[in-house]
Amino acid sequence: MMKAGELEIGEAKSSTPISGVNRGISILDFILRILAFVGTLASAIAMGTTNETLPFFTQFTRFRAEYDDLPTFTFFVVANAGVSAYLVLSLPLSIFHIVRSSAQKSRNILIFFDTAMLALLTAGASAAAAIVYLAHKGNTKANWFAICQQFNSFCERTSGSLIGSFVGAFALILLIFLSAVALSRR
Amino acid sequence: MMKAGELEIGEAKSSTPISGVNRGISILDFILRILAFVGTLASAIAMGTTNETLPFFTQFTRFRAEYDDLPTFTFFVVANAGVSAYLVLSLPLSIFHIVRSSAQKSRNILIFFDTAMLALLTAGASAAAAIVYLAHKGNTKANWFAICQQFNSFCERTSGSLIGSFVGAFALILLIFLSAVALSRR
Repeated sequence: MMKAGELEIGEAKSSTPISGVNRGISILDFILRILAFVGTLASAIAMGTTNETLPFFTQFTRFRAEYDDLPTFTFFVVANAGVSAYLVLSLPLSIFHIVRSSAQKSRNILIFFDTAMLALLTAGASAAAAIVYLAHKGNTKANWFAICQQFNSFCERTSGSLIGSFVGAFALILLIFLSAVALSRR
Repeated sequence: MMKAGELEIGEAKSSTPISGVNRGISILDFILRILAFVGTLASAIAMGTTNETLPFFTQFTRFRAEYDDLPTFTFFVVANAGVSAYLVLSLPLSIFHIVRSSAQKSRNILIFFDTAMLALLTAGASAAAAIVYLAHKGNTKANWFAICQQFNSFCERTSGSLIGSFVGAFALILLIFLSAVALSRR
């Protein structure tokens, strides 16, 4: 309030309802960040702990599938872990916005990083989704076989771990939009 | 100017430099939109026209690879075509922002759709990248063979068409950030 006073002398009487709405937006921002954090962390853990050993083996090989057999899944884990770490680090700034609902520079910074993180998370999630789809369906033209017939629980686990990631991406889209609304309501 | 006057009486004397900066931002916005449009359209066309027929065939099969043999590439074309269509439709609004640099509702709308389009474009590009990577390297664990040895020009074409898509995604990140800066400078 004291800082904002320099520029916005004319807004003194209308500042109470505006900052009330912005506080509501900031609280929603905080909740969405926690939701996205839980989603991405759960995805990273679910994918990162995926492995399956088949109950039969030959003399030379054990049939075993781990998430890091596929580089795309490794990228998925890194992307989700990175985004969830960022979301935790952004929580103090989100709390700051609840207290100081007229802040703007810090909202700009959040929008920028949220957007970058959205791109990273969507990239990880959709690359993994492409591979999961291939594992389920295979591709006859390229002679890639569906591996889900053998590695059933591996496939279910990797498919399931996509959900948290997409929830996180959806939350990030809302977060960017909310920050923009808060900026324009200032 | 006339509309903004209702709320921001106190800012009258400082409005000229602010709107000047915002006009610059709006012009940069316009240029970036055209860049992203060209990138995504080129990607859609390059991928959508990709096919390769190998110079040998058996009695029963011709060895032929088309982009829509892989569903992920179809999604890539749809995503890129959709985003480039959106970018053309958003150009009039971008021009409106150059003329009326204090507009805010329309900037909010643009931020929302830009973010959604960024997610769509990144999803398409990175899913295609995952498949292209697989086509180049294969995966011994899953018994998926690298098909690029046979379909060489097919692979080069699909790899190349990713570039425009990633340029578009990068431009969209900048566009969202620029809109946020313009909103906070209002």
